[in-house]
Amino acid sequence: MGRTQHIQDSSNDFYAQERSKASFEVNDLSLVIWGSQEKIDRINKLQRICEEDPLIRYDPKHLGASREEIFILMAQRTRRMHELLGFHNTEDFNYVLSSHIDNQPFCGLHWKMFIPTIKYLGTDKQVKYWIPLAESHQIFGTYAQTELGHGSDVQSLETTATFDIDNQEFIINSPTLSSTKWWPGELGITSTHVVAFAQLLIDGKNYGVQAFIVQIRDTENHEPLPGITVGDLGVKMGYNAKDNGYLRMNNVRIPRENMLMRYAKVSKSGIFSKPKNEKVGYACMMEIRTDIITSCSLIMARTLTIGTRYSLFRTQFKDSNGIEKKVLDYQLQQEKIIPYIAETYALLAGGRKITRLHQQNIKNIFEREDFSLFKDYHAIASGCKAVYTARMLEAIEKVRQACGGHGFSAFSRFVDIYHEFSPFVTYEGENTVLSLQTASYLVKGLNKSLKGEKIPPFIEYLKCVVGIENEKFTAQSKREVLNIDLIRKCLRYKAAYLVSIASQKIMEGLEKGLSMKETWDSYAGINLVDASTAHVEYFTYTSFLEMIVEASNERVKEVLIKLCLLYGIQKLITNPSCFFENGYMAGEQFKMIKSAKEDLLYELRNEALSLVEAFCYSDGCLGALGRSDGKVYETLYEWASNQNRLNDIPVQKAIQAELRKIRDVSYMKPSL
Amino acid sequence: MGRTQHIQDSSNDFYAQERSKASFEVNDLSLVIWGSQEKIDRINKLQRICEEDPLIRYDPKHLGASREEIFILMAQRTRRMHELLGFHNTEDFNYVLSSHIDNQPFCGLHWKMFIPTIKYLGTDKQVKYWIPLAESHQIFGTYAQTELGHGSDVQSLETTATFDIDNQEFIINSPTLSSTKWWPGELGITSTHVVAFAQLLIDGKNYGVQAFIVQIRDTENHEPLPGITVGDLGVKMGYNAKDNGYLRMNNVRIPRENMLMRYAKVSKSGIFSKPKNEKVGYACMMEIRTDIITSCSLIMARTLTIGTRYSLFRTQFKDSNGIEKKVLDYQLQQEKIIPYIAETYALLAGGRKITRLHQQNIKNIFEREDFSLFKDYHAIASGCKAVYTARMLEAIEKVRQACGGHGFSAFSRFVDIYHEFSPFVTYEGENTVLSLQTASYLVKGLNKSLKGEKIPPFIEYLKCVVGIENEKFTAQSKREVLNIDLIRKCLRYKAAYLVSIASQKIMEGLEKGLSMKETWDSYAGINLVDASTAHVEYFTYTSFLEMIVEASNERVKEVLIKLCLLYGIQKLITNPSCFFENGYMAGEQFKMIKSAKEDLLYELRNEALSLVEAFCYSDGCLGALGRSDGKVYETLYEWASNQNRLNDIPVQKAIQAELRKIRDVSYMKPSL
Ligand SMILES: Cc1cc2nc3c(=O)[nH]c(=O)nc-3n(C[C@H](O)[C@H](O)[C@H](O)COP(=O)(O)OP(=O)(O)OC[C@H]3O[C@@H](n4cnc5c(N)ncnc54)[C@H](O)[C@@H]3O)c2cc1C
Ligand SMILES: Cc1cc2nc3c(=O)[nH]c(=O)nc-3n(C[C@H](O)[C@H](O)[C@H](O)COP(=O)(O)OP(=O)(O)OC[C@H]3O[C@@H](n4cnc5c(N)ncnc54)[C@H](O)[C@@H]3O)c2cc1C
Repeated sequence: MGRTQHIQDSSNDFYAQERSKASFEVNDLSLVIWGSQEKIDRINKLQRICEEDPLIRYDPKHLGASREEIFILMAQRTRRMHELLGFHNTEDFNYVLSSHIDNQPFCGLHWKMFIPTIKYLGTDKQVKYWIPLAESHQIFGTYAQTELGHGSDVQSLETTATFDIDNQEFIINSPTLSSTKWWPGELGITSTHVVAFAQLLIDGKNYGVQAFIVQIRDTENHEPLPGITVGDLGVKMGYNAKDNGYLRMNNVRIPRENMLMRYAKVSKSGIFSKPKNEKVGYACMMEIRTDIITSCSLIMARTLTIGTRYSLFRTQFKDSNGIEKKVLDYQLQQEKIIPYIAETYALLAGGRKITRLHQQNIKNIFEREDFSLFKDYHAIASGCKAVYTARMLEAIEKVRQACGGHGFSAFSRFVDIYHEFSPFVTYEGENTVLSLQTASYLVKGLNKSLKGEKIPPFIEYLKCVVGIENEKFTAQSKREVLNIDLIRKCLRYKAAYLVSIASQKIMEGLEKGLSMKETWDSYAGINLVDASTAHVEYFTYTSFLEMIVEASNERVKEVLIKLCLLYGIQKLITNPSCFFENGYMAGEQFKMIKSAKEDLLYELRNEALSLVEAFCYSDGCLGALGRSDGKVYETLYEWASNQNRLNDIPVQKAIQAELRKIRDVSYMKPSL
Repeated sequence: MGRTQHIQDSSNDFYAQERSKASFEVNDLSLVIWGSQEKIDRINKLQRICEEDPLIRYDPKHLGASREEIFILMAQRTRRMHELLGFHNTEDFNYVLSSHIDNQPFCGLHWKMFIPTIKYLGTDKQVKYWIPLAESHQIFGTYAQTELGHGSDVQSLETTATFDIDNQEFIINSPTLSSTKWWPGELGITSTHVVAFAQLLIDGKNYGVQAFIVQIRDTENHEPLPGITVGDLGVKMGYNAKDNGYLRMNNVRIPRENMLMRYAKVSKSGIFSKPKNEKVGYACMMEIRTDIITSCSLIMARTLTIGTRYSLFRTQFKDSNGIEKKVLDYQLQQEKIIPYIAETYALLAGGRKITRLHQQNIKNIFEREDFSLFKDYHAIASGCKAVYTARMLEAIEKVRQACGGHGFSAFSRFVDIYHEFSPFVTYEGENTVLSLQTASYLVKGLNKSLKGEKIPPFIEYLKCVVGIENEKFTAQSKREVLNIDLIRKCLRYKAAYLVSIASQKIMEGLEKGLSMKETWDSYAGINLVDASTAHVEYFTYTSFLEMIVEASNERVKEVLIKLCLLYGIQKLITNPSCFFENGYMAGEQFKMIKSAKEDLLYELRNEALSLVEAFCYSDGCLGALGRSDGKVYETLYEWASNQNRLNDIPVQKAIQAELRKIRDVSYMKPSL
């Protein structure tokens, strides 16, 4: 069969020529991303294994299966992954497995939430008892916090754990419908145990939400235990191979030892002692939040590998010489793809910084019960989680749309990527709620700073709020705009200015007679989130600069600088009114910035392919549109015709028979 | 079972108190939306029928079915709808059916594309022959334009129709892989006929793309005819009860009479005569584009009914009196919901205007072959289609996210709404490509205007480009900002300014030595789309003003004015740099605008429920979160536990058995 022009010359490395246009060696950049050649090699090896394994590798013929079928398949795949890789290395998991398969594997909650929670919150004795059972899968567990009625507001959970001193037990209850545990992953069918969060009641007094290990099913036959009502909560936007579930507990008794007591404790005599730092209960959330933050850039990179390759493959409309134009040569297509590539690198840098902070924080806490970094980590990570996941999700959908009709096909993989990562904006802290936490830290920090008190290094820049009305953007030409330090100052201005505006807004609310709570909820919310976002962007930009400093290869450095500039400029262009409200910038200067952005898009056009390929995603996770051999149409055709359950003859016949019944309806006289 | 506080008092009209807060009577607003009481009654009646019919009504237990099952079910549902309603009334269809069921019914393409195309492009004789066959479903048809390789660029389609003078036939061929017809709905399994678009070749000369009726399957047994390869193209983001398909034609012969010859013609002797207006070939697209434009506000209204009700049901965190707060009382939640309500009304008004224009245009063409309105209609509708569908899709996803965890459940209905309407941004003209068409009209219009030539009334405002640098925003207080005519001028300024900037950018490109084509593709794209968007927003705003003028009820008028202001202000706040580039507005003034927006959000908080309920969506299409009785948790619990295939015991047992095999893998020694 023939093909149109440029497709006819396709060979095995369809993109070789495009690749050669880049100004740097892909592998040099991969080293910046992955840190070492060994790591790159391991990733490549893992990917090959995924692609070669008949059970694990992406198989379009499973699309359209019923949810039951998807579950069974996923269980088998999980077992196989387990055989091959084990579950300990979450980094391998994040990068490789989660991109090759199109659904969430089993036991993710077990390994990423249940086990870490026990490790963080359990006493040494509890850890010694539970962890071997869990790690050998004698038990399967999940993290049961959210209820039908309360998610964000953890303090208002309604499940109760009443201490029964006589029996040295806690009695767990779900007293209302809205107290039903709702959403925990792997609860519906698979878990035998949960860490349940419940209001601790001793002698009628409430000691707040604490964590308890509750067995809910028999470990051998998986039957629910007495007092337990449990099930799957139905079909969702994604996660359909995951049994997010509901759980009701009716007078379920557990031994006193099942309360996780590393920090909060209940003695035999019923005396409660509270932890040094109340927030330690969320320690496990920090782990997973860090995980989410670092995943964002990887997910974007995969999405953009597909989108960039396809934009260099797809031609539409002819140029003035009658030659079909690659769509990436349209400025408007560049605008859809390239800023997200810049953002991918920015998020990579920000994620790296957060990870280091997290590791330091955990070390401090575990080695010396030192909580000094806790608040800073928490504030920065919350804001980053909110902003990064939102950008990531937006990117997936925009890139999908940028692939026109074929982006709508599940064969593109965009569909499963969007579905599987869409809960990122909701779980592990709903994004708005998290942004407000960061905002609170910023506003308090600014107040301290204005009073001359010491503030943490992460927000030292807020000092510049004093005298900010005199700051001016100095660039007088497009050349001058393209300066990483100038753009940094501009982003710093934006963050500091918006934090100060949010502070002012709060003052205003209080002056109007609103309570602090009212002001926060009903008056200053928009300003607070704006401030938090600008702070995250400044943090991310400076992290990007640090990553550039660490890079040793000069040509890699150069292209990273361009990406960093583009990221920064993109953030200036969004929500830019702050630059004009105080005369920081002149309209002419803003025009220069926009024009500089267009230049960057143009310059990065030829780098785009290598920029995404540096992340090393292999064809097995890039669907039909992202293949390196450019056989997009061949693959679409092959998968549609031969890997598609709808094209089985009996299926077609059955549907056509129904169709003929439609014909037989006397449509001309509808009953209405 | 008990419930938390406000839920305990729930009765059948859970929202009665909230409803009473509105400043107007819901039905008065419904009359503005629907035009007459009869129409409202008909809608309510149709909805009742949908809800009562056991086959048609939304049934959560079908979620998670395999694609084959979904198909069979949809065929049965289609037959039933057909029995009840027939297919002629697309308005009923758009409003009622498409919102009650969660997938596309059969025969939509047949009625909305195949039949209209023949009516528009066929000669009287052809219409007389084909339409009765189609309307009685003796044949099933679809619209086969897009190919694997070309969608947006219709002129480059590769399918050929070669005139064979001896046999008075056309020979239809798919000469390359990329010429395979790809995407047409109902092609894969159900259609017996297609209108195929192909390059007309006579004596080796190409006469461009024309439309041909080709039979592809036996009308009795649905077997593909000789020379035809046809099938379904696989799973998609949505539309999974629709057999979008592929089609290859190998020397398929059709009689000369099967070319649609109302405008373009091929005589028996092989003489081609071209239509008076080349664009008439897209007449059917105009019909469906109008349809899409008018649907956007309805889809948004349904989404927002769910989102608003849920935001008034859901409480999270306590206020200073310890009472749980309805989430709509948070400014940030208002910001997620209320601007989209304003946009819904704006799009309703814009859609109404477009519909009138369309009807006038069609009348002109059919009654007097008068194409004078064609270009204007085309230009405005293209831009509106692009902007409206993008906003609509964005709204669905944002509102879903605003419902936290429960928004992720398919029971919320957001999932099927997003999936079913996501192709709106891609098909019937890819949005970017359409925006560029509007931009071209605008730039040409501006040039004419600058030369003093007459320009169509739709863009007469472009005259204000002359002297625009002297225009100033005059408001000096927040009160002055809240003025519909002032906001109109501001939007007019924005549109005129951005069109003039786009024009300048083109001049710049040409001066740099780029060709017009190059300038357009690689240099001015971003500015062109900005111009098109601003134009659409101005058009929409003025349409909204017209709708307000037509409304007779004073209290309804008042609330519509607030919505119109909010819509306008929202558009000023997005991409606002144009106001500062030329000193049109001072920073202080912009702050007032933002503050005015916050006031509007606050004022509209109590109107929100009635504003969405005026669209009359009934509970049957609002899922578990949007129910009028407020039994959100009861419904989620009931559907999850009893309407959920995953909770069938044998299914659970099978999955748990697989799980135990995972345990048996010696995970501690993975092979890697
Ligand atoms: C796929 C998935 C998996 C999950 N897995 C688990 C799990 O394993 N274990 C578990 O315990 N939970 C799990 N969850 C639950 C999840 O953590 C919660 O859904 C999440 O925390 C959001 O809370 P919510 O649903 O209460 O949202 P809500 O807080 O009800 O949000 C609704 C709206 O109210 C707004 N809002 C709320 N409070 C405020 C405020 N103070 N100011 C302004 N706006 C506000 C929100 O921004 C949002 O727009 C899961 C959820 C999903 C979707
Ligand atoms: C669910 C669904 C149903 C469909 N049903 C039918 C049907 O019934 N019959 C039928 O014939 N077709 C149908 N189609 C096909 C549909 O009409 C096309 O997919 C659509 O027109 C988009 O064209 P494309 O896929 O070629 O996108 P492309 O044009 O390839 O778009 C890819 C990217 O290139 C960009 N681009 C393209 N040209 C330019 C330019 N000049 N300047 C800047 N950027 C550009 C686009 O903006 C986009 O970002 C359907 C598609 C879908 C998804």
